[in-house]
Amino acid sequence: MRVYFPKPPKEDSIPILREAVGSGVEILTGDVPDDFEMVIDGRPTEAFLSVPSMRYVVVPFAGVPEQTLKLLRERPHLSGHNLHHNAADTAELALTLLFSSAKYIVPVDQRLRKDNWGSGLLDSRAMTLDGKTALILGYGQIGRRIARVLVASGMRVLALRRNALATNEEGVELHGSERLHDLLPEANVLMVALPLTSETTGLIGVKELALLPKGSILVNIARGLIVDEEPLYQALKSGHLHSAGIDVWYQYPEVKLTLAGHAPVEDEPDIQSPSKFPFRDLDNVVMSPHRGGTSMDSEPRRLRDLAAVIRAAATGEPVPNRVNLEAGY
Amino acid sequence: MRVYFPKPPKEDSIPILREAVGSGVEILTGDVPDDFEMVIDGRPTEAFLSVPSMRYVVVPFAGVPEQTLKLLRERPHLSGHNLHHNAADTAELALTLLFSSAKYIVPVDQRLRKDNWGSGLLDSRAMTLDGKTALILGYGQIGRRIARVLVASGMRVLALRRNALATNEEGVELHGSERLHDLLPEANVLMVALPLTSETTGLIGVKELALLPKGSILVNIARGLIVDEEPLYQALKSGHLHSAGIDVWYQYPEVKLTLAGHAPVEDEPDIQSPSKFPFRDLDNVVMSPHRGGTSMDSEPRRLRDLAAVIRAAATGEPVPNRVNLEAGY
Repeated sequence: MRVYFPKPPKEDSIPILREAVGSGVEILTGDVPDDFEMVIDGRPTEAFLSVPSMRYVVVPFAGVPEQTLKLLRERPHLSGHNLHHNAADTAELALTLLFSSAKYIVPVDQRLRKDNWGSGLLDSRAMTLDGKTALILGYGQIGRRIARVLVASGMRVLALRRNALATNEEGVELHGSERLHDLLPEANVLMVALPLTSETTGLIGVKELALLPKGSILVNIARGLIVDEEPLYQALKSGHLHSAGIDVWYQYPEVKLTLAGHAPVEDEPDIQSPSKFPFRDLDNVVMSPHRGGTSMDSEPRRLRDLAAVIRAAATGEPVPNRVNLEAGY
Repeated sequence: MRVYFPKPPKEDSIPILREAVGSGVEILTGDVPDDFEMVIDGRPTEAFLSVPSMRYVVVPFAGVPEQTLKLLRERPHLSGHNLHHNAADTAELALTLLFSSAKYIVPVDQRLRKDNWGSGLLDSRAMTLDGKTALILGYGQIGRRIARVLVASGMRVLALRRNALATNEEGVELHGSERLHDLLPEANVLMVALPLTSETTGLIGVKELALLPKGSILVNIARGLIVDEEPLYQALKSGHLHSAGIDVWYQYPEVKLTLAGHAPVEDEPDIQSPSKFPFRDLDNVVMSPHRGGTSMDSEPRRLRDLAAVIRAAATGEPVPNRVNLEAGY
């Protein structure tokens, strides 16, 4: 099988990948080859997909860009796949944002660096999570990992997923997404872990934030556009929300928007305000620069999972992580 | 029963406590009464303990100050008790420090507040915890809670406790404390959750830090003196440690050292460098001002547990949380 990988994430990833897939697979980079059966690219061009031998499109990250979904829907002979190699890292970042918001760790760290302990040991606006209720929006690989940890932390955990029947799974109360408005008033913690689709764009707006009890925490590690920008800022500023941990934003540096998920490492920092509202002036938000699944360990994990997809296709076994073109992820 | 509570944490705690304990108990504050059966104080004076009717000393926080242990050991007719109401909060702070160290959340937050996203989405020194090994020192109420969450996070979890036989409990590998040096080389994460005793003072020094694999994380939510100050600073500075999350320090503002655990809320911030080494200049440490069990919810939890101790003593039932005077906690 011939695999075309036009933009590999790092120079040394191709030899690692070649070794992992073994013989019988040719991995090509550089100029577009004459024919190939698989392309690894988040946003493959129409030209790539028109190669007669093409069978598989592999998006080398979680989520699938809308333009790629459209191209795949128009070409039912192609099979679209993506990677969930960073579900653990993204869940860990979500938990990091939850815990650090709940305990106001950023402002107390900054204060103690100036030798200021605050006004006595009892100076704390920290929230205890044990015994509180969390509502997780999205119960895919990331949502499940988050749920497991929050159950272990002593929280009552509710989760919403599309078309779910009310049920109980490993201590998690599952509900269908139509229950959102009923359950928001119970959520001391709201974790947003949904893919961005036409149904989830703007899902959490003024009304939904108002339905949360006063003093709750919101964490978004999915996509900025799922939570309305100005209502989020206002709910933090007014104190309706105790705090928020936000990894996904409303304004991105150009390079990130284009290459998200497989950008080459660059030395120049990217400068761009993440919102038109001054989140930077709030001490009850933890701001993370769309790091989601990125860690020191994420490239080896990506290559491991990518190799598994390629091997399955090359040997005629079922290819994992097929994209649901209707659902969009 | 007459209970003397010389320094209640807040003005409104006495009426709440009176209501919770019910009739048959007199709770006294202010000047030392002529006789009483119970004193609630972390560091009761000899005079209090010499009252002939005295039976119970209740330390209204976790851990027992050395001077109080000494007084209790000299008076075997007295029964010493303490509170573990903040085990959940302290475990949550430990997890906060672990996650925020692993993901470098403080420096990336500070950077994004200046519109700086870092050099591309792949700019990350974050550590993935899933699949790594954690070693928890101390397996009391706090250690167990931490262990449960780390197991749920996909980590292999080892824990050491005094006099334990090697065994397996809910996914946690338990070992006796004599295995410390054998297990440190396996620990990608070291969580210190031990009481400070003569045996644990300086437990983690130059040798023990060197035994940790390069790139591991240390979290201390117990007492500063368990981890040697200069070796900790050097291991962070050299990068031998990936990072550390530290709640307990080497230098304290005077008021904290004296009243730790039941200081009145004060408006004046306390200024004191937490160490003679410049931890403040390191970006791989998360600095927390001895907040441990403190949260918005900790006073109600303290009073709930204190009332349970008082009620048990008043009705002649077994009184919970008796201090082990030999072990010192």
